Amino acid sequence: MSKYKPLNSLEVPRFAEIKTFMRLPYIKTVEDIDYAIIGIPFDTASSYRTGSRFGPSAVREISSLIKPYNIVQDINVSECLSGIDYGDIPVVPGDIDETYKRIEKGLDPILEAGAIPICIGGDHSITLGELRSIKKKHGPVALVQFDSHFDTVDSYFGNRYNHGTVFKRALEEGLIDVGRSIQVGMRGSLYSIDDLNNSIDMGFKVITTQEMSKMGLKEVAKQIVERVGDGKAFLSFDIDFVDPAYAPGTGTIEVGGFTSFEVLEILRELKNINFVGYDLVEIIPAFDSTQITASLGSNIIFEFISIIALKKKGVRANEV
Amino acid sequence: MSKYKPLNSLEVPRFAEIKTFMRLPYIKTVEDIDYAIIGIPFDTASSYRTGSRFGPSAVREISSLIKPYNIVQDINVSECLSGIDYGDIPVVPGDIDETYKRIEKGLDPILEAGAIPICIGGDHSITLGELRSIKKKHGPVALVQFDSHFDTVDSYFGNRYNHGTVFKRALEEGLIDVGRSIQVGMRGSLYSIDDLNNSIDMGFKVITTQEMSKMGLKEVAKQIVERVGDGKAFLSFDIDFVDPAYAPGTGTIEVGGFTSFEVLEILRELKNINFVGYDLVEIIPAFDSTQITASLGSNIIFEFISIIALKKKGVRANEV
Amino acid sequence: MSKYKPLNSLEVPRFAEIKTFMRLPYIKTVEDIDYAIIGIPFDTASSYRTGSRFGPSAVREISSLIKPYNIVQDINVSECLSGIDYGDIPVVPGDIDETYKRIEKGLDPILEAGAIPICIGGDHSITLGELRSIKKKHGPVALVQFDSHFDTVDSYFGNRYNHGTVFKRALEEGLIDVGRSIQVGMRGSLYSIDDLNNSIDMGFKVITTQEMSKMGLKEVAKQIVERVGDGKAFLSFDIDFVDPAYAPGTGTIEVGGFTSFEVLEILRELKNINFVGYDLVEIIPAFDSTQITASLGSNIIFEFISIIALKKKGVRANEV
Amino acid sequence: MSKYKPLNSLEVPRFAEIKTFMRLPYIKTVEDIDYAIIGIPFDTASSYRTGSRFGPSAVREISSLIKPYNIVQDINVSECLSGIDYGDIPVVPGDIDETYKRIEKGLDPILEAGAIPICIGGDHSITLGELRSIKKKHGPVALVQFDSHFDTVDSYFGNRYNHGTVFKRALEEGLIDVGRSIQVGMRGSLYSIDDLNNSIDMGFKVITTQEMSKMGLKEVAKQIVERVGDGKAFLSFDIDFVDPAYAPGTGTIEVGGFTSFEVLEILRELKNINFVGYDLVEIIPAFDSTQITASLGSNIIFEFISIIALKKKGVRANEV
Amino acid sequence: MSKYKPLNSLEVPRFAEIKTFMRLPYIKTVEDIDYAIIGIPFDTASSYRTGSRFGPSAVREISSLIKPYNIVQDINVSECLSGIDYGDIPVVPGDIDETYKRIEKGLDPILEAGAIPICIGGDHSITLGELRSIKKKHGPVALVQFDSHFDTVDSYFGNRYNHGTVFKRALEEGLIDVGRSIQVGMRGSLYSIDDLNNSIDMGFKVITTQEMSKMGLKEVAKQIVERVGDGKAFLSFDIDFVDPAYAPGTGTIEVGGFTSFEVLEILRELKNINFVGYDLVEIIPAFDSTQITASLGSNIIFEFISIIALKKKGVRANEV
Amino acid sequence: MSKYKPLNSLEVPRFAEIKTFMRLPYIKTVEDIDYAIIGIPFDTASSYRTGSRFGPSAVREISSLIKPYNIVQDINVSECLSGIDYGDIPVVPGDIDETYKRIEKGLDPILEAGAIPICIGGDHSITLGELRSIKKKHGPVALVQFDSHFDTVDSYFGNRYNHGTVFKRALEEGLIDVGRSIQVGMRGSLYSIDDLNNSIDMGFKVITTQEMSKMGLKEVAKQIVERVGDGKAFLSFDIDFVDPAYAPGTGTIEVGGFTSFEVLEILRELKNINFVGYDLVEIIPAFDSTQITASLGSNIIFEFISIIALKKKGVRANEV
Repeated sequence: MSKYKPLNSLEVPRFAEIKTFMRLPYIKTVEDIDYAIIGIPFDTASSYRTGSRFGPSAVREISSLIKPYNIVQDINVSECLSGIDYGDIPVVPGDIDETYKRIEKGLDPILEAGAIPICIGGDHSITLGELRSIKKKHGPVALVQFDSHFDTVDSYFGNRYNHGTVFKRALEEGLIDVGRSIQVGMRGSLYSIDDLNNSIDMGFKVITTQEMSKMGLKEVAKQIVERVGDGKAFLSFDIDFVDPAYAPGTGTIEVGGFTSFEVLEILRELKNINFVGYDLVEIIPAFDSTQITASLGSNIIFEFISIIALKKKGVRANEV
Repeated sequence: MSKYKPLNSLEVPRFAEIKTFMRLPYIKTVEDIDYAIIGIPFDTASSYRTGSRFGPSAVREISSLIKPYNIVQDINVSECLSGIDYGDIPVVPGDIDETYKRIEKGLDPILEAGAIPICIGGDHSITLGELRSIKKKHGPVALVQFDSHFDTVDSYFGNRYNHGTVFKRALEEGLIDVGRSIQVGMRGSLYSIDDLNNSIDMGFKVITTQEMSKMGLKEVAKQIVERVGDGKAFLSFDIDFVDPAYAPGTGTIEVGGFTSFEVLEILRELKNINFVGYDLVEIIPAFDSTQITASLGSNIIFEFISIIALKKKGVRANEV
Repeated sequence: MSKYKPLNSLEVPRFAEIKTFMRLPYIKTVEDIDYAIIGIPFDTASSYRTGSRFGPSAVREISSLIKPYNIVQDINVSECLSGIDYGDIPVVPGDIDETYKRIEKGLDPILEAGAIPICIGGDHSITLGELRSIKKKHGPVALVQFDSHFDTVDSYFGNRYNHGTVFKRALEEGLIDVGRSIQVGMRGSLYSIDDLNNSIDMGFKVITTQEMSKMGLKEVAKQIVERVGDGKAFLSFDIDFVDPAYAPGTGTIEVGGFTSFEVLEILRELKNINFVGYDLVEIIPAFDSTQITASLGSNIIFEFISIIALKKKGVRANEV
Repeated sequence: MSKYKPLNSLEVPRFAEIKTFMRLPYIKTVEDIDYAIIGIPFDTASSYRTGSRFGPSAVREISSLIKPYNIVQDINVSECLSGIDYGDIPVVPGDIDETYKRIEKGLDPILEAGAIPICIGGDHSITLGELRSIKKKHGPVALVQFDSHFDTVDSYFGNRYNHGTVFKRALEEGLIDVGRSIQVGMRGSLYSIDDLNNSIDMGFKVITTQEMSKMGLKEVAKQIVERVGDGKAFLSFDIDFVDPAYAPGTGTIEVGGFTSFEVLEILRELKNINFVGYDLVEIIPAFDSTQITASLGSNIIFEFISIIALKKKGVRANEV
Repeated sequence: MSKYKPLNSLEVPRFAEIKTFMRLPYIKTVEDIDYAIIGIPFDTASSYRTGSRFGPSAVREISSLIKPYNIVQDINVSECLSGIDYGDIPVVPGDIDETYKRIEKGLDPILEAGAIPICIGGDHSITLGELRSIKKKHGPVALVQFDSHFDTVDSYFGNRYNHGTVFKRALEEGLIDVGRSIQVGMRGSLYSIDDLNNSIDMGFKVITTQEMSKMGLKEVAKQIVERVGDGKAFLSFDIDFVDPAYAPGTGTIEVGGFTSFEVLEILRELKNINFVGYDLVEIIPAFDSTQITASLGSNIIFEFISIIALKKKGVRANEV
Repeated sequence: MSKYKPLNSLEVPRFAEIKTFMRLPYIKTVEDIDYAIIGIPFDTASSYRTGSRFGPSAVREISSLIKPYNIVQDINVSECLSGIDYGDIPVVPGDIDETYKRIEKGLDPILEAGAIPICIGGDHSITLGELRSIKKKHGPVALVQFDSHFDTVDSYFGNRYNHGTVFKRALEEGLIDVGRSIQVGMRGSLYSIDDLNNSIDMGFKVITTQEMSKMGLKEVAKQIVERVGDGKAFLSFDIDFVDPAYAPGTGTIEVGGFTSFEVLEILRELKNINFVGYDLVEIIPAFDSTQITASLGSNIIFEFISIIALKKKGVRANEV
């Protein structure tokens, strides 16, 4: 039986109590947990709108609407998994180097204990810190990136650590198994064709929104699964993958994106990938007064958790 | 010729005058009317966000943009029908029992006079009061429910009357002909598979959003029509059937829903069903600063009215 | 030394971590505490705008800006006091009777342990539940009510328990020592002069906004202190006491009210009153997108805590 | 006894029913009425932000919070007066000449019948149309203008009819008895000192915000009363007289203005002036999401009605 | 090489500097330019919500996110084209005749110099002024209108110049080659079937949203291209063509519209049409707090510019 | 005669044209100018809400409402002064060291040319860069700081350059003549009494909001003037000096502050101080949907410009 699970909403109304993700217990433990929700409220590396430091709080607030049973995946995550809200990493606004150290320091024990971290940003720069920690435990992993931007620029204004350079750095540091990695959803105006070519030259498989629209989401999911294979993988979801009609609360909005239905559909198709970590980044509550961005974010994380639960159930089934 | 019809917008600008639905006359009569718009601003039974008590007012405000001719259905509702805005039921906030009595008291004479009530909520709990009144005139009716939630829970916190229990109660009270009833659009996380099974066990036909997506909306409409048959029916539309990108102003937002285009399409396909009443519930203006939710709501009601008009035109045609 | 105190903001940024009031530890204990923050997210009894169920969450979110030293009162609350965030009472939306029971059940052990409860509403109806619990421990107390409304109506729509009837009920139940009680800040249009006379006839001393403006706040504070005397008292602060320019996020806005500076000034003058409980009610975040209402609310509570700290410091000083 | 009066809020909740001003009956009659509320939703003449065409609707919506008894003036307006909401004048957006004709045509019968019109704008240009109608009944009247701007410019871009030229035109047309007229509250940056001198040269008495601050509001009120004397007068209130903290929903915001308390105080001091008409202009709901501007507006109108009631009560008392 | 091009975003952050469209130089020249961005902030002719006078400013603000390379069209607009932000036409609010003169006076030299004007409204009435200027240079042109409304009404309230009458007037004035013109996207309730028939009787080809949905966007684009042929054309894009979920910031919202992805797709298919001018109208920032409407607008204009660039590149290629 | 002055608003409407401050010419020159408006959109050093990078743009947008004549100071700034909008400094988000260099590089030539810089932030950290540049031209200057916070903390999270440490650094670097410097307006909760003592120990004169309230603003102004004396001074205005009711759009809101009227009053009293530079910081548009914060900001800058104009007029008068 799961040690840590959400509050019962038939006893305590959903709008009540301290806001943790999905009303999980807030406890800084690494014992007896399958996964941990971790806020990383760092937004210093944003190039346009900023304020994703309030992202974890906003996602937690609305996540109280999430219930434990995923009908499409036919899994009850509370029954299968022990999960906690670990709280936030004490990032240092304005200091990305120190923040990276603190992210690592925060994630290391969780990973070491065999649990799966699910991080809520913060801007996309935080993924570098997460991947450094992931590598120590799991070695280089396949990256599955949902995003409207490549984030593989070399530098901005001479600045090498930024939310637009994160995967270039990750590759240089050997954190990613690029031959199994894939970027999907890129769209919008570019500086030049080099923006795309950089990613391809680095070894990423790229599927643009335009291409996704042509091949259909089922096929995209299939190609992701094939690309990643059986090895370990990390899923990084930038909310601007979604159309701003569905996710206005983000930093560099790109029109022409996906619907919330499509997002959930494609995530569910990835259930057999061996993800060892997840993050969801770039939610900015100041532009989300209706809470629809944060609500979509909380459902995306619920799909992450469902995949973890399916894997655990499968393992158990195999053990029998 | 129709006795009561909207103001002429070529004479009085759409932004002018007291806000009634579609600029219909505001008059508390039951004579010479084909349909009546009735606000039921009760939101005590909401389990998360609240404030749908301001729903009728917000829908009326933006409904001044509705013109009388429905091009898809090829019908001019002003020419066919006499309609009024009856104003609101004097609900009692905090007292659901008394409110139910007042809903009945308010609807009874309208139904008795042979007119069709179109109610604007308020939260979904109000439908129970409406159905009690409907039954007196028409007997048990088929329920056609558009919703992202089942609303067939037995109780919340020991509370048997709530916006999540309304159709369980309706069934127990014999208000619904369940064998001809259907719930469509359910999605999102559940407490458990029982949430779905409860509805099925009660006798409802259920089509989830997932299934709707697979079969296509034409097929869904066809199944609704087949399910309901020739008997009398009631259409209850919870605005959270729609994706929150299109309808952010509601109480328990569920991402992954339908577009406004899809909503109008499917409603138009139901034109041959014999609806004796309609409601539209769960619009919360405090989360609808752009008015898109209320605007969609007013168009949904326009489709309701169009169906009434088509039926009347058909009757007249047959009489000739 | 204080057992429970806020997070250190030089170590963890103010925007980080789970949102408890003033970043106090979230722990459901009654041991070793001087005061407890308790959310009571019940808003069923609101007569106009509703949604104060989200009040506790909104106040907690912005309260991370509160630091421990009160320069006007010259007191460091963290050094003097052990305080916790107790979380919320599991209220039952739509059911005021059951909610009152749960409020009592929630507050009883805190009061029993000798700690001072500071409740965050929720609408003003919750105060009745609090006073019932207070009475068990302390007997009838003087009421010091900051409000633009009297809240002494007998009933609404036949409904005897409502946010506008709460102090009539409290008096009938013997919870208030009316001869030492005072209502200040009343203003705005009334049903009739009886609204004022009711309060006076019941025994309350009343000072309207108009009168406060004439006598000055220092004098008002003096009259409050004199009225209450040395006995035990309860402070109930309805945020609509403040002008809506300073506190737009409330249910029944009354223009012509006080500034935030004036609010803090008058509260500080009450430092010698023997308050055994406090509440702050009627904050509705849906109308507070700039967070200024919640921010003022968090500062009001900080003044409550400062008074508790001064009292404790004084007791200690006397003990030496 | 009064023929027309507001709905009883102990029977019908304030948030319910069609939104008329103060829940007065909506009826286009001129018989048996002491005053009529008239919306004039014309905003073509705005020079910066526009959208005051939605002003009447927004003021009506929130005005349901107004109760009939004015405690400061000790008068119950429902008992003294018969009042209606006459609805809106069918203005023609984009056509100020035609709109002026329609304003006159709308107000003439009301004035002819001896009732007092209270108009809700719309931008300030509408006052010219009102004054034309007023003159026919009452001859030139004293103008009492609360405003942060003079509105006595000769033309904008060659355009002689505009919300900034309205009182220059009114003077030229002989609608105003300038020797008894007064403009108060002017502030903010000007084109040149001529802006002030124009008004003075035309014969207006002007008291700027700066001067008001020095002399105190009691003295300002006294000077207004002295200036106007016993003759007939018209009160025109531009909401930008108030500080934008209290009234953000307007077109040409000027910081450094008055509080809502001050506004109500000064209006109450004018109770002995013989006003034959009133208007309240320049409320733009699109910048008033918290409704505080519209709420202040509805209270300003309540003070207008209270003055009418006091006059009528006085007349009756004299008759006895 | 292009003389005028956007600021380099790797040197100056996107959020910095004075806001011109796409960070183009702000210079009132007609020399050495391929296209000019021109704001026409006139909104007097709006029939419901107003405020599109702030449209140009809002589109400029968010357009700093546009980069020069269009990946779908494979074109770098900065390399191909010299473009400027010409600033705004000094329209006269409230005076449509004078404004039309000023639009002509503003566009004439730009057209005379052989550059292509891209105008940002303002409401749809401005297109008449633009077409008058276009005709002088190019003769009557084919109109390609994306819109949810026909805008071919004869008059409103006796008013012949209005955002709903603009194309009736344009036809009467011989500005449009109606036999090659097309209106696409019409939907929503109508006054009567005449609204549609008027357009058809005038000679327009009309494709409603309903029909577009059936035939698919590829086919629609094909029919547009066929209809227009090789002659000169003008593209007028009313943002309410798009669904309000994607473009809430507009004046007469019509639900049931297109997605941002569909909009970009169809525009790209028109690359071989010989457009000599473009406009984008009816963006109202007051209803676009998340900036998604303005962002979509800026991307629509980027597609316009891309078509201009493709044409120029093609011409050059042919010259070689 | 002044070379550079604002657009004439009787020719070009205030809502039209590219948004520069007060519609001054946008030109990067240092010749023939008395003052330059410079945006410094850097917000990396914010400790709570962030987003002041959009401050310069928001202030420019609403500043088009500023006219040239200051009636209280009796000065027409357009006639006296030549001023420009210099655009923004190309700051580097995330890199405070590089940003400081760029600020210096940007301001040096302006100061060298004898013009007075008026900088718009950005967060308060930018003042350090400005003061470094000021010192090169003018030596150490007196600081006149309006603020609710001291900003003299030594470091945050080990970070020495931050918006809360800026004046500690400035002192250490010898940029400030502390014996003539003054901090006014401090209020709100503190970490400890040391927050105040730090400032005093460094040599600042400090007047808290509490003290200001007691002594009156006239006296505060007098003490500022006496403290600064005849030497050169720099005025740094943090918008959180003002109460959040008047300025909600800022990062670390502190209730209990000043009104907009008071702000303008006190600034006008400083007209005889020899200010060689000014800044206005911490405006965050994402929390200023009604634009009242930016509007107040633009009026504050207008008062700065008026002081410059008075000085120049005085010099000229003396020359005669």
